[in-house]
Amino acid sequence: MKKRNIAVVGAAGAVGREIVKILEERNFPINELRLFAAEKSCGTNIPFKGKDIEVTKVCENSFDNIDFALFSAGTNASILLAPQAVNSGAIVIDNSNAFRMTDDVPLVVPEVNPQDTFNQKGIIANPNCSTIQMVATLKPVYDKVGIRRIIASTYQSVSGTGKKAIDELKHQSRAVLNGEKVTSEIYPHQIAFNVLPHIDVFEENGYTREEMKMVNETKKILGDDEISVNVTCVRVPVITGHAESVFIETKEDLSITELKKLLNEFPGVKTVDDVEKYPMPIDSISDDDVLVGRIRKFREREFNLWIVANNLRKGAALNAVQIAELLLSRNDS
Amino acid sequence: MKKRNIAVVGAAGAVGREIVKILEERNFPINELRLFAAEKSCGTNIPFKGKDIEVTKVCENSFDNIDFALFSAGTNASILLAPQAVNSGAIVIDNSNAFRMTDDVPLVVPEVNPQDTFNQKGIIANPNCSTIQMVATLKPVYDKVGIRRIIASTYQSVSGTGKKAIDELKHQSRAVLNGEKVTSEIYPHQIAFNVLPHIDVFEENGYTREEMKMVNETKKILGDDEISVNVTCVRVPVITGHAESVFIETKEDLSITELKKLLNEFPGVKTVDDVEKYPMPIDSISDDDVLVGRIRKFREREFNLWIVANNLRKGAALNAVQIAELLLSRNDS
Repeated sequence: MKKRNIAVVGAAGAVGREIVKILEERNFPINELRLFAAEKSCGTNIPFKGKDIEVTKVCENSFDNIDFALFSAGTNASILLAPQAVNSGAIVIDNSNAFRMTDDVPLVVPEVNPQDTFNQKGIIANPNCSTIQMVATLKPVYDKVGIRRIIASTYQSVSGTGKKAIDELKHQSRAVLNGEKVTSEIYPHQIAFNVLPHIDVFEENGYTREEMKMVNETKKILGDDEISVNVTCVRVPVITGHAESVFIETKEDLSITELKKLLNEFPGVKTVDDVEKYPMPIDSISDDDVLVGRIRKFREREFNLWIVANNLRKGAALNAVQIAELLLSRNDS
Repeated sequence: MKKRNIAVVGAAGAVGREIVKILEERNFPINELRLFAAEKSCGTNIPFKGKDIEVTKVCENSFDNIDFALFSAGTNASILLAPQAVNSGAIVIDNSNAFRMTDDVPLVVPEVNPQDTFNQKGIIANPNCSTIQMVATLKPVYDKVGIRRIIASTYQSVSGTGKKAIDELKHQSRAVLNGEKVTSEIYPHQIAFNVLPHIDVFEENGYTREEMKMVNETKKILGDDEISVNVTCVRVPVITGHAESVFIETKEDLSITELKKLLNEFPGVKTVDDVEKYPMPIDSISDDDVLVGRIRKFREREFNLWIVANNLRKGAALNAVQIAELLLSRNDS
């Protein structure tokens, strides 16, 4: 297989580091790997296949001869630098919110809408972490019996915010345990031993941007403007692993047995569901599948699901690398 | 006002200690206060109005001349000892699950169904913590426009399980922060930096008993078997304060302004709802009101609410003492 030149922008961050690890784990065919980050992280060395690669700042020629540029450096960096990468001939796979709802940018979960990948005009967007695990779970149900309505409440870990948020949770937890004063810099309020119904900024309609991402991205990925999606996003004091309590109303009825079969047959999804058995955020750290449990039928056409995934991997880095793998499969011959 | 003789059973537990504190704070007219607990807690001294009261084991004459016996010692203790208290002439206010769904036992949230208190035949049940805060919030909406459907996901703190669970969360949190091995005794899995979609035992229908308590108790308190209640209960690594993400479908429409007005006018409920302002579990520690925020209208007759309360106080001890206060008001002249 032809080896590619890959750039990772935001390589020193929580998701960037996972991207580098996953490229190695999955033995992605790489000729050259270039790692970029903001000035403050330059000089960091990140291990890849037994060698250390130094993280540098993006400069004029950074994307020359790059095939795929994987961005995870925040919305502003993507707006600023993705066009430069595209102009250099790279395909950008962007993990930020910058282009997700842009008309000619495909928004892809490889198990759900792989075909959209190939309609790219230089940029492919990686959906929001909390969208990916929900849509991956619901897709086989959607295809089989239709979904009329989704009502979700999330339990999102702090690593979704980044490395500094993990540090803040740990610092604050130590302070509470030692009876010391708690200070907050990353979050507006204490996150240790607390929960915050507030992720990303508030929109005018009273929903947060995170909630509206789940609403709008779900509609775009499923290609369905009619589906009703109502979400409440909540940050919980967990380091890694997002959980979601999801209620769905389907168009046609199905049994619990049929529902579980659909989920288990779908790639990247696995049920963990028995008496006393259910998935938890800590399980997702070492499992790349989306884990689904607490599967209950409330009444005809109404179901509850408990959906857990690693927000840094399937929710971000892994999904981005899987998109790059799709591109490989089409471009190779 | 005539002073009463009060017994607290389970006085050394997390809720029992709150009951004693609240009796003092609210200056409940007490002649004699007797504190009881299981053998292992006997000899503990609990402060009340500047004196220490020793906790003893329940014996044959423990409830003689007791007016109100407040039980919070678990279901088994209530089943065993509540009849003894009733036979001695006491009115039992029981915080356990033992009698909540028993036909001739009123299940009371004083702001919601005070009239039911007086239909007691010796035992009055205090609802489950997660039910109390939800029903208190929904009652004025229910009365004004009707409620057809409730879909709730909870974020419940460990103090609901008791003092040992608080210790377990703290021990485990220290272990994780220090990179040490985590052991679980109270919960089936690690609760520190994790969430468990599992509270109380699993029922045959796939819901947990905690979830079914919220379903059945809500119907009993509102006196409405038709209302659809669908709940997912989740334990989060928070010490005190339960939060709930609650979706409701009303029978008639109302505006957000009308909804907020209804909530703020209802006793014991307060909205905390503005851009960037919302209630959190840590807020509930020092606030006896049920706090409601993130109030959003999804579409006609459909609303989201974020409901927070102190599970040890309004969710348990305070509600029990308020029931006793109702009894005072009727019996005094």
